[in-house]
Amino acid sequence: MTNLEKLIRHFEKFPGIGSRQARRFAFHLLTESKEDVTELSELIRDIKSTVAECTSCYRFFSRNGHGDHCPICANTLRDTTKLLIVERDSDIDAIERSKTYDGLYFVLGGTIPLLESDDVKKVRGGALKHTVLERVNTGLKELILAFSVNPDGENTSRYVETLLRDLIATHALTVNQLGRGLSTGSELEYADPETLKSAFENRKQIG
Amino acid sequence: MTNLEKLIRHFEKFPGIGSRQARRFAFHLLTESKEDVTELSELIRDIKSTVAECTSCYRFFSRNGHGDHCPICANTLRDTTKLLIVERDSDIDAIERSKTYDGLYFVLGGTIPLLESDDVKKVRGGALKHTVLERVNTGLKELILAFSVNPDGENTSRYVETLLRDLIATHALTVNQLGRGLSTGSELEYADPETLKSAFENRKQIG
Amino acid sequence: MTNLEKLIRHFEKFPGIGSRQARRFAFHLLTESKEDVTELSELIRDIKSTVAECTSCYRFFSRNGHGDHCPICANTLRDTTKLLIVERDSDIDAIERSKTYDGLYFVLGGTIPLLESDDVKKVRGGALKHTVLERVNTGLKELILAFSVNPDGENTSRYVETLLRDLIATHALTVNQLGRGLSTGSELEYADPETLKSAFENRKQIG
Amino acid sequence: MTNLEKLIRHFEKFPGIGSRQARRFAFHLLTESKEDVTELSELIRDIKSTVAECTSCYRFFSRNGHGDHCPICANTLRDTTKLLIVERDSDIDAIERSKTYDGLYFVLGGTIPLLESDDVKKVRGGALKHTVLERVNTGLKELILAFSVNPDGENTSRYVETLLRDLIATHALTVNQLGRGLSTGSELEYADPETLKSAFENRKQIG
Repeated sequence: MTNLEKLIRHFEKFPGIGSRQARRFAFHLLTESKEDVTELSELIRDIKSTVAECTSCYRFFSRNGHGDHCPICANTLRDTTKLLIVERDSDIDAIERSKTYDGLYFVLGGTIPLLESDDVKKVRGGALKHTVLERVNTGLKELILAFSVNPDGENTSRYVETLLRDLIATHALTVNQLGRGLSTGSELEYADPETLKSAFENRKQIG
Repeated sequence: MTNLEKLIRHFEKFPGIGSRQARRFAFHLLTESKEDVTELSELIRDIKSTVAECTSCYRFFSRNGHGDHCPICANTLRDTTKLLIVERDSDIDAIERSKTYDGLYFVLGGTIPLLESDDVKKVRGGALKHTVLERVNTGLKELILAFSVNPDGENTSRYVETLLRDLIATHALTVNQLGRGLSTGSELEYADPETLKSAFENRKQIG
Repeated sequence: MTNLEKLIRHFEKFPGIGSRQARRFAFHLLTESKEDVTELSELIRDIKSTVAECTSCYRFFSRNGHGDHCPICANTLRDTTKLLIVERDSDIDAIERSKTYDGLYFVLGGTIPLLESDDVKKVRGGALKHTVLERVNTGLKELILAFSVNPDGENTSRYVETLLRDLIATHALTVNQLGRGLSTGSELEYADPETLKSAFENRKQIG
Repeated sequence: MTNLEKLIRHFEKFPGIGSRQARRFAFHLLTESKEDVTELSELIRDIKSTVAECTSCYRFFSRNGHGDHCPICANTLRDTTKLLIVERDSDIDAIERSKTYDGLYFVLGGTIPLLESDDVKKVRGGALKHTVLERVNTGLKELILAFSVNPDGENTSRYVETLLRDLIATHALTVNQLGRGLSTGSELEYADPETLKSAFENRKQIG
């Protein structure tokens, strides 16, 4: 196998990338400047030392002089009474961009598909219990489960509730999920009964 | 033009149907039984006498011995304090299927696109005022605007509010819109700030 | 079931139409003029008497004073040495529009899917033998098989060849299929080996 | 800008990659082994020295001890009477996989869009003339233009013909294009007149 083929093989392991696009990536690098290619090479070489996983919420963050906690977990202005549990890092990005939440996070690392209960091993159940227990000591009152609105997301909600049942009871934690309703782009005609029910319950005065 | 071509021309006027599919419709009829074709022909011939437009909410309904009001408007068990304003008939079907609303309806007949204010003429503004005025006398308290969650839907909401401003003030009507939030199938990562904001506000206890 | 529901039920049987679009068709008719609805109703009522199936090629045609043969089969200027066998009526429309063929046709009425050999009963095998035999007497020399370029189309080609084997041998008929190559819109990068092979064999001088 | 953000910025320049997927690429690397990340980094660092552009056909190839010519151009068994001109490297991959061509290639490096004649500067016009002139001395007889079957591809064919007009005339070169016809997956009903015309001309005996 030539070095070019080896490189293409690496790109084929990138998420969502097939052999044709992996090939294009290699050809793309050939058209880039020497400086750009060198910089990319060095950034990849150093990624594991520049990026760390937060020991509290498990999201990735640029180390950059921070300690073991990411800038959100280290920020003393965040509301420590709330912990929002999401599937992956990019969910946090979306919520932070919306500027509607000022509490803490936990990245579960995946969902529990309805039909593959073995996937329990792939999510951070033990770490979640540990983080919740730690946060209880600093005032945690409310858990917010924020998974996708589909059968796998609902199954993951049930899994988290069962996992944390004792902690929730002992420490009188409230467990909420994000509100359902019409989302941007929804057309009434295609809305399902569950969504419409919440949309009616949460109807809101205007004008 | 042959009769076959004339028939295809009629089918081409059906919503969403191009010339190729119109042709298939004609060929489809040729393979149907004589009885089916005759029944279809008669149902079409009589449609305008069997189906009427409700003089109160303006939805279509099968006349079938009913008077000028559709079965919903004629149903004395419906909650007459609420009037839900929608774009079209099929929105009502979706809401009725969800069994989450027991008030009355009004079919506006279209939206007011943000960029084409002339379309005001195409919706039933005058009829809406008339129906609201009439309903005020039978206890109307709340208007619910239920348009699609997009710029045209929002523009239509503004149009309705302006149109009814005096009636709303005089009769102290509440004007609500359906709640925003995550709808079935939503993935957190792709949710927009507006949707996330409502999803946080409307978060709901589970377990 | 109301008449409106019966009408919607008929439209749901139209090819490619679901319940929502069937409903829209009914509502569309309600917005059409009385004259248009009446004309459509009459055209449907009379379709079986105005449209006939050609007794030679089996395509549908507007009777309109023609006899048992469609205008193509009845046209004495067409080249009777060629018979092109297609799956359905709309294939003939496409070929006639291209003005590249002046021979005769036969509509087989379907394909023989690779995995459902029972579908042999659904195509006009006996009628095809009969038409070929008849056409041999008026000078038929070449059969052109024009099915879709996919496994089912190829299986149908094999079926037709086997069905007509004796006739082909006895009357020394040539059996051709349409040429393979790059079709409009093809990108070289995505072309399969079979297509490229034909494209090289059939390469053509320009300029 | 953190190093993580810099890395994401590099991935965003990869062809067809948006900011979300660029982010996923970075997270993907964080889950890979130290060895894999190091190897990828080194392969990228060295790509410009391991991969070269052939000085005759301009495709990229792994240097690996070869000289200035790629393995195809250096292969003395290839048929030097034919030169196939393509838009990009990946077209050659598709043709080589089909094993239907044993001549030489030239990578033009792009097409000339119908509406942007300035793009002439972006393709290797001068290099093409030079390579053709060189190949004439080693027996070149036939040029095969193999561009996509669309307006831009046809415009590029015209550009190449005009560019090489004198060379073609002086050396009596034949200029061909790949054959048109039904490609794998084509349905007769949707075939355009141009494709059908070629499909009829190139019809082929079976059985």
